[in-house]
Amino acid sequence: MTNTTNATNTANAGNPANGTDPKPRTVAAYAAPAPKAPLARTTIERRALGAHDILIDVRFAGICHSDIHQVGEEWGDGIFPMVPGHEIAGVVAEVGPGVTRWAVGDRVGVGCFVDSCRECDNCRAGLQQFCTGTPGTVFTYNGVGRDGEPTHGGYSTQLVVDEGYALRIPDALPLDVAAPLLCAGITLYSPLNRWGAGPGRKVAIVGLGGLGHMGVKIAHAKGAEVTVLSQSLRKREDGLKLGADDYRATSDPATFTDLAGTFDLIVNTVSADLDLSAYLGLLRTDGTLVQVGAPEKPVTVNAHALLGGRKSLSGSMIGGLPETQEMLDFCAEHGIGAEIELIRADQINDAYARVLASDVRYRFVIDTSTI
Amino acid sequence: MTNTTNATNTANAGNPANGTDPKPRTVAAYAAPAPKAPLARTTIERRALGAHDILIDVRFAGICHSDIHQVGEEWGDGIFPMVPGHEIAGVVAEVGPGVTRWAVGDRVGVGCFVDSCRECDNCRAGLQQFCTGTPGTVFTYNGVGRDGEPTHGGYSTQLVVDEGYALRIPDALPLDVAAPLLCAGITLYSPLNRWGAGPGRKVAIVGLGGLGHMGVKIAHAKGAEVTVLSQSLRKREDGLKLGADDYRATSDPATFTDLAGTFDLIVNTVSADLDLSAYLGLLRTDGTLVQVGAPEKPVTVNAHALLGGRKSLSGSMIGGLPETQEMLDFCAEHGIGAEIELIRADQINDAYARVLASDVRYRFVIDTSTI
Repeated sequence: MTNTTNATNTANAGNPANGTDPKPRTVAAYAAPAPKAPLARTTIERRALGAHDILIDVRFAGICHSDIHQVGEEWGDGIFPMVPGHEIAGVVAEVGPGVTRWAVGDRVGVGCFVDSCRECDNCRAGLQQFCTGTPGTVFTYNGVGRDGEPTHGGYSTQLVVDEGYALRIPDALPLDVAAPLLCAGITLYSPLNRWGAGPGRKVAIVGLGGLGHMGVKIAHAKGAEVTVLSQSLRKREDGLKLGADDYRATSDPATFTDLAGTFDLIVNTVSADLDLSAYLGLLRTDGTLVQVGAPEKPVTVNAHALLGGRKSLSGSMIGGLPETQEMLDFCAEHGIGAEIELIRADQINDAYARVLASDVRYRFVIDTSTI
Repeated sequence: MTNTTNATNTANAGNPANGTDPKPRTVAAYAAPAPKAPLARTTIERRALGAHDILIDVRFAGICHSDIHQVGEEWGDGIFPMVPGHEIAGVVAEVGPGVTRWAVGDRVGVGCFVDSCRECDNCRAGLQQFCTGTPGTVFTYNGVGRDGEPTHGGYSTQLVVDEGYALRIPDALPLDVAAPLLCAGITLYSPLNRWGAGPGRKVAIVGLGGLGHMGVKIAHAKGAEVTVLSQSLRKREDGLKLGADDYRATSDPATFTDLAGTFDLIVNTVSADLDLSAYLGLLRTDGTLVQVGAPEKPVTVNAHALLGGRKSLSGSMIGGLPETQEMLDFCAEHGIGAEIELIRADQINDAYARVLASDVRYRFVIDTSTI
């Protein structure tokens, strides 16, 4: 009897609330058909709504530098056609019969992953980005879901996701400026949070791009004294407006002598090959330099730069679900959204070129109604 | 009047308790006369006892690998003749008139430094090894003291040191096995302490030499589960006797797959060039790999090995005075001394050769009565 009941429950689990058979749906998207190829309009299949799935009408999708890396197969083989996008803001359009957290009309976000094992130590600790179980962290695109099908991201009109992997976007945050929070925002919030950026602490943000500008806003809102370390002073005025207390050029050797031993925490958002030993010299005793960008080449540091002053070179990668929700609530409370340039879908390829030329202040966001 | 009084105090400050004029004294020592030269018996001058100085009869001096590095000028220019030795255990023989902490006959140790500014944030925090003031951390030998004179270390019969820079060696610790605690002991105790080695934590010690064997003893006494990661299984029996729960060969690739994601903390005592990214793979989420040895070449790691699992590569360098005293008390309480091979002074050069050949279990200690 018990077995039969379970079997019936399982069979019902896939049916949406209205009792009709769930069916996959075809949605419009922008995809790269092959590695390094320009993105073009196409259609993709979204899976039939499961019991615990929600269907999201995607409204906005941010363009992250990692989208470009993955389309270009710079991080390894990709799955094509590839629909990038893991900075997703939208509205719940439909819910599966087992959904308890969401109702149609709710404002939701989806970040870099859409599933994980839910049972390993990291998942239980809310660190789903480091899932060690099976299927592991299922990335929002260029990944493979539990069903064995490739995942597709936010450059599309609709998305189906397990209700547990969506985040609530507070009403105070407009959806367009909220979208980049789902990757750029949490990527900076998490290390600032973990390494205690706050009153009385001096924090440096290396690089004022899509990631860095979020770091300045968040570290400032957390009450830290914030310095931007950028190659030149070109964006100095912006940096100060965003909340930086100081802005220094790393092309000026005086920066490294003037600021020696100054910072409790440095967050490096730059993927280019920097002289990290020089940056370690800017830390106080027990200070930490956190890498959030992932350089393609291995990073090299002088061991003496770590030993003298008991310093750390650390890594941080996005954030887990609870911390991402905490970040969205924090940003809403402090009126923090990304600085964005809203584009049409047919401008995606141009936007990629401009990202590569560092010609964006500070994040491109696709209006997905134009797909 | 006030000025006159001060001047009088200062003038008196150099006089020992017995009222006779303080004079420098000539003591026997073993010194390297020139870079890379064999050490030979000689005499050196110890400064006249100041008001706050103590004279120590050195009984035992450990041989640290860094003695060999410095005699060989592998860390930069050295000051010659050089009397190495910063693992010093002895007995107070005389005290200056202003000395309050020590009495003749007290059992004391001196470690890697003999002075610092006493006023910078680090000195105030008890982290004298990271002094940022003037004169900075004055190293026990191959340094320059406040008086502008070169410092000379423990390979000598007597030593003059400010009373604040000596540590109490508890009665429970024999002086010969206590000597190496002053460098090797604190070098391992400090990171184990700071990064929380204790019950429920899995700690790996890389390398079972002079540093590593102290790490095993201390981590075990702190209640951590201890694994030795050594190039081969040659010293396995020793390692288990010293307190290790497991002992693995790093020459066996299976070690890196079997133990992936296992450790909360890895302390690397090996100065040779290791594949640190592979060791980072052995850490759990939020784990730390601490370098206590200083490779001559810069260290290289894959940034992804730090980002995935929010890991840290950190440095640690000996310890400050309060923590060194805490370590000595901890070792006395747990019956921890170094495993030593006691030698005569005329065996120092042979001992250096054996250290370079890794032929010592686990620390040479000079009986300074043979100088």
